[in-house]
Amino acid sequence: MIERRSLAALLLALPGAGQAQGADPLPSWREGPRKRVLLDFVATVTREGGSGYVPPAERIAVFDNDGTLCVEQPAYPQLIFILDRIRALAPQNPTWQQDAVLRAAIAGDLHGAMAGGHEGLMRLAGAAMAGDTPEAFQQIAADWLKTARHPRWNRPFTALVYQPMLVVLRFFRASGFTNFIVSGGGIEFVRALAEETYGIPPQHVVGSSFALKVTEDAGRLTLLREPRVDFIDDGPGKPIGIARDIGRRPIAAFGNSDVDFEMLRYTTEGSGQRFGMIIRHDDAEREFAYDRESHVGRLARALDAAPAQSWQVVSMREDWAREFE
Amino acid sequence: MIERRSLAALLLALPGAGQAQGADPLPSWREGPRKRVLLDFVATVTREGGSGYVPPAERIAVFDNDGTLCVEQPAYPQLIFILDRIRALAPQNPTWQQDAVLRAAIAGDLHGAMAGGHEGLMRLAGAAMAGDTPEAFQQIAADWLKTARHPRWNRPFTALVYQPMLVVLRFFRASGFTNFIVSGGGIEFVRALAEETYGIPPQHVVGSSFALKVTEDAGRLTLLREPRVDFIDDGPGKPIGIARDIGRRPIAAFGNSDVDFEMLRYTTEGSGQRFGMIIRHDDAEREFAYDRESHVGRLARALDAAPAQSWQVVSMREDWAREFE
Repeated sequence: MIERRSLAALLLALPGAGQAQGADPLPSWREGPRKRVLLDFVATVTREGGSGYVPPAERIAVFDNDGTLCVEQPAYPQLIFILDRIRALAPQNPTWQQDAVLRAAIAGDLHGAMAGGHEGLMRLAGAAMAGDTPEAFQQIAADWLKTARHPRWNRPFTALVYQPMLVVLRFFRASGFTNFIVSGGGIEFVRALAEETYGIPPQHVVGSSFALKVTEDAGRLTLLREPRVDFIDDGPGKPIGIARDIGRRPIAAFGNSDVDFEMLRYTTEGSGQRFGMIIRHDDAEREFAYDRESHVGRLARALDAAPAQSWQVVSMREDWAREFE
Repeated sequence: MIERRSLAALLLALPGAGQAQGADPLPSWREGPRKRVLLDFVATVTREGGSGYVPPAERIAVFDNDGTLCVEQPAYPQLIFILDRIRALAPQNPTWQQDAVLRAAIAGDLHGAMAGGHEGLMRLAGAAMAGDTPEAFQQIAADWLKTARHPRWNRPFTALVYQPMLVVLRFFRASGFTNFIVSGGGIEFVRALAEETYGIPPQHVVGSSFALKVTEDAGRLTLLREPRVDFIDDGPGKPIGIARDIGRRPIAAFGNSDVDFEMLRYTTEGSGQRFGMIIRHDDAEREFAYDRESHVGRLARALDAAPAQSWQVVSMREDWAREFE
């Protein structure tokens, strides 16, 4: 016997339940070709008996994070976090003053902090982010994401996620897809946001990682994050991360910059029904406008390849009715 | 409106549906303390409002593969596969005859093939397993697992999985758990078996991996497996693989040998409800009997630690009513 309450809960959990027949699953998208192609793709792969049908186990969708699901300007949130964290930890680490890059970061000199190039950035990241257990670090990141404020909107970063992408995540999930984040960002940093904000559990986040070390703490086995990069899940690293952690080629990919190029190719160059979408930041008024010349989220190569690859290029200004909640 | 057919399908998909009230979820387990503790643990973590309740998102269970879910004697199936594959590829690789380890493998001389130690084994693995795309390699492994025969039973390896563990996997899944395999074996090799045999999708397999290289093939982005080990998911590697790929500490772990020791510790040394179980091979008649002295699946340290850690030690001979389908 199923109780009435359980049955009701069950019906509510049905794909598509809670939205009347014919209700718009993408209400924050304006009518137009991008919205239409997106709806058509999902209709095709979910139509049982249709020639484009894809069984649920193979409905894998991958989403870049920074610039695709959330704001990445004027700097990646993780970079702002790193600088905040270095300032917070500086009093306990007086030797940092002897390192020019760290000293610049402590002084809030963004230009000086960046002057060390890739190697300097890794030193900053190591200083700010290593030495904790993965769980403790994820909690530190989660607290920061809820309390730190974006310089333009004075809102927490967890509020600066794109409403039209949240409905895409929900629509895909309700259509039997498994959504993954595939991010160049640190894996625990993205996980700190993913479950509560995107409904994506930690095991469905693929990201860059520091090496982990097994150690003991008070007789318990403990993991510690070491200041040594283990994997960079960016550019060509994205298809590698997907193959290793997901083990199945996605049928849909969403990105916004050239470091998503290989992920988009890997996804859409498979056979059968495939979908690739690029979020183009062309809305200076409501968000930011940048592409070819930007240091953050540069979009050139993927934009040039889009027509030949049949990737949909979203205009945030035209295609999205609003950007945030 | 929900059609009658959909509703029926839905009810069948309910946790616990298809088994009458009070039916035994572990029919191939004999009554006794191990079965009782297993049932009690699941009852405790799923009892809403109870003090031991664990929300479904946190119900993560990890299972070793070789020796825990399937037969690993007289040699790991993957090792038998490697030797088979080297013999199959030898005619196209005449230079292999100049390498003593490879020559021994081609001649079917297991002792000689093992004489090169770890380094020799890696050379064998590289020769047998690299150079394909991950998808193509997984297909080769899947075909082998269905057609090669175990030397003792003359049955395919896909048939030599433990029936009592299949019901545990099913019972856990029906109780809202997400099951993961965490194996020292190659990730694609385990994936070749996991979905069809265990109901575990590729994204929920954590394993050892070769490095992957991004390349082009006929204008398409392609991944190739390189003969270079990227990650060994064994011993202390298991908690590292769990932290990186799952991102949440499991609440239940099943293993059978000392290379599961750290995974068992990492799982059961967390706070709250925890469950650790060791499958002990003590059934020479129906399967194999081995522990402290075995080269394959050696079990000594984890066995000694079991009482203090409150890990359940299963006697295959006494606790399991049968071993295979």
